[in-house]
Amino acid sequence: MKFIFLISLFLSSLMAVSQDVKPVLVIHGGAGTIERKSMTPDKEAAIRKSLKEAMDKGYEVLEGGGSAMDAVEATLVLLENSPWFNAGKGAVITREGSHELDASIMDGSNLNAGAVSGIKTIKNPIRAARIVLEKSPHVMLYGEGAERFASENGMETVENSYFTTPARKEIWKAINQGKSESGKLEPSKFGTVGCVALDKKGNIASGTSTGGTMNKAYNRIGDSPIIGAGTYADNQTCGVSCTGHGEYFIRIGVAKEVSDQIAFGGKSLEEAVNFTIYEKLSGMEAEGGLIAIDKEGNIAMPFNTPGMYRGFRRADETYIGIYGDD
Amino acid sequence: MKFIFLISLFLSSLMAVSQDVKPVLVIHGGAGTIERKSMTPDKEAAIRKSLKEAMDKGYEVLEGGGSAMDAVEATLVLLENSPWFNAGKGAVITREGSHELDASIMDGSNLNAGAVSGIKTIKNPIRAARIVLEKSPHVMLYGEGAERFASENGMETVENSYFTTPARKEIWKAINQGKSESGKLEPSKFGTVGCVALDKKGNIASGTSTGGTMNKAYNRIGDSPIIGAGTYADNQTCGVSCTGHGEYFIRIGVAKEVSDQIAFGGKSLEEAVNFTIYEKLSGMEAEGGLIAIDKEGNIAMPFNTPGMYRGFRRADETYIGIYGDD
Repeated sequence: MKFIFLISLFLSSLMAVSQDVKPVLVIHGGAGTIERKSMTPDKEAAIRKSLKEAMDKGYEVLEGGGSAMDAVEATLVLLENSPWFNAGKGAVITREGSHELDASIMDGSNLNAGAVSGIKTIKNPIRAARIVLEKSPHVMLYGEGAERFASENGMETVENSYFTTPARKEIWKAINQGKSESGKLEPSKFGTVGCVALDKKGNIASGTSTGGTMNKAYNRIGDSPIIGAGTYADNQTCGVSCTGHGEYFIRIGVAKEVSDQIAFGGKSLEEAVNFTIYEKLSGMEAEGGLIAIDKEGNIAMPFNTPGMYRGFRRADETYIGIYGDD
Repeated sequence: MKFIFLISLFLSSLMAVSQDVKPVLVIHGGAGTIERKSMTPDKEAAIRKSLKEAMDKGYEVLEGGGSAMDAVEATLVLLENSPWFNAGKGAVITREGSHELDASIMDGSNLNAGAVSGIKTIKNPIRAARIVLEKSPHVMLYGEGAERFASENGMETVENSYFTTPARKEIWKAINQGKSESGKLEPSKFGTVGCVALDKKGNIASGTSTGGTMNKAYNRIGDSPIIGAGTYADNQTCGVSCTGHGEYFIRIGVAKEVSDQIAFGGKSLEEAVNFTIYEKLSGMEAEGGLIAIDKEGNIAMPFNTPGMYRGFRRADETYIGIYGDD
């Protein structure tokens, strides 16, 4: 009898090992008026390459048994370092002509979260957000306080001009010389980056990083660094990262609302995101999208804009999309 | 036939007028280790007087047919001006020895919201939050950017030292001379103020104002200025204002979670707040409370701390409480 019990214990532990959750990673590089007519083949190829490299990097972490938190951070560092997205290098420019970066990260296994806003000299804001999560008693730090905390904890610093790219500067100049209405002619009005990952242990993490909105007011805080608005993760429900017109994402509480519909309304991930993006956000005539993974590994990538840079990886499946139809 | 239709239209419009919603106003002045043994009769009387004056002021606005937004603002201005609460005058002191104030306000009729954080020289942060709601394209502004915007829009400014009271200074000195662990000996560790109102038109508004946590790090943002964490209002569900250990309120997304349980889970206000405060918040070993009004005018004032300064007014009923049992 005891022998049979031990055999069964052994078999069930074997099953537990073989029942590792299949890892999933999904990313976005911003939603907006991304259309084929405003894209060159070279630019499209470069953007697809950047998205793929970042996604592969994070997925490797997951495949190697790494945590969802590590995968999200690794992915977002690459997207921040790429000049093609509105986060880290390539961030948009404030009305005053400088860069103010925001980022947040959340660990769905324990609801720990970290966020920074108004960052001017930390090379990778997502790393600063994670340091706040790990080493600060606080969840959210702003500006100098955030930078001091991050640099004291070993984060790499750069000059504010490091974040500037010629393309962003040209648009900013055009806006401020009255040649273009604020942001309206910019092909990638939003361009925030985000990542959600589900690791082999079934833990979910989400992260978001952004330069905010082009020509934004000095010291404006958008949805990206706000837990519940731009980012949320809870192993019991899902992980979410948003991109779009941040003020509406704050007012709706988009990321938390998706999670709460699953937690309290018994909805599927797809039903939840469809309601929040296509009914609620669209009903307020606001634009944007999100990426999400639920605890079963289901993926959602809804957006109500012409396009959204996006992609996912899971066992034997890789996808990258830019426009509404691909 | 047409005549009967007109009569019935006339009668139903009469009924609509007579069916004005009965206004309700609820306030808090912070949750924490508020116990009889640490209170003198004089202090208790002064605090009860301040709470009552602020509540009466807001309720007068509602009785006169004013909006929930106006009632919330009028109430919170008085609580900010009172030295007894951790908001406006009487705010706690940061590690660096200054005051950094946060506030937010939300209009449940249209989900508009405004928030300011890191305020040093605007006398009434709740007014600054409302100006952001009304006149800025943004929802949330920080520090200098917020102050510049508020003062350009006519908000009264003061020296940072205006917010200091002898009582707060004494505690801060004790902490920083190593005589007390951070905040642990302070009777009202939290002390944020908040107000939720339901007006005759059935509109709900919520607002929260705070000095943050005693000895907090420079540039820390707590839950009070975060829409969805410390404040939320939606005519379809309820209005909520929170007080407590802000980092946990952000991680849970307390105010939005209460609203979402009603919206998506079909719960009553009481069931919703009981879950979030007594199961979720207590489950994380975090402390605090909230006030809320739902669209039917039901009130909730749960807290898992020894006490919470609180009160409400509605037709022929006035209540003020401080401790767990009164």
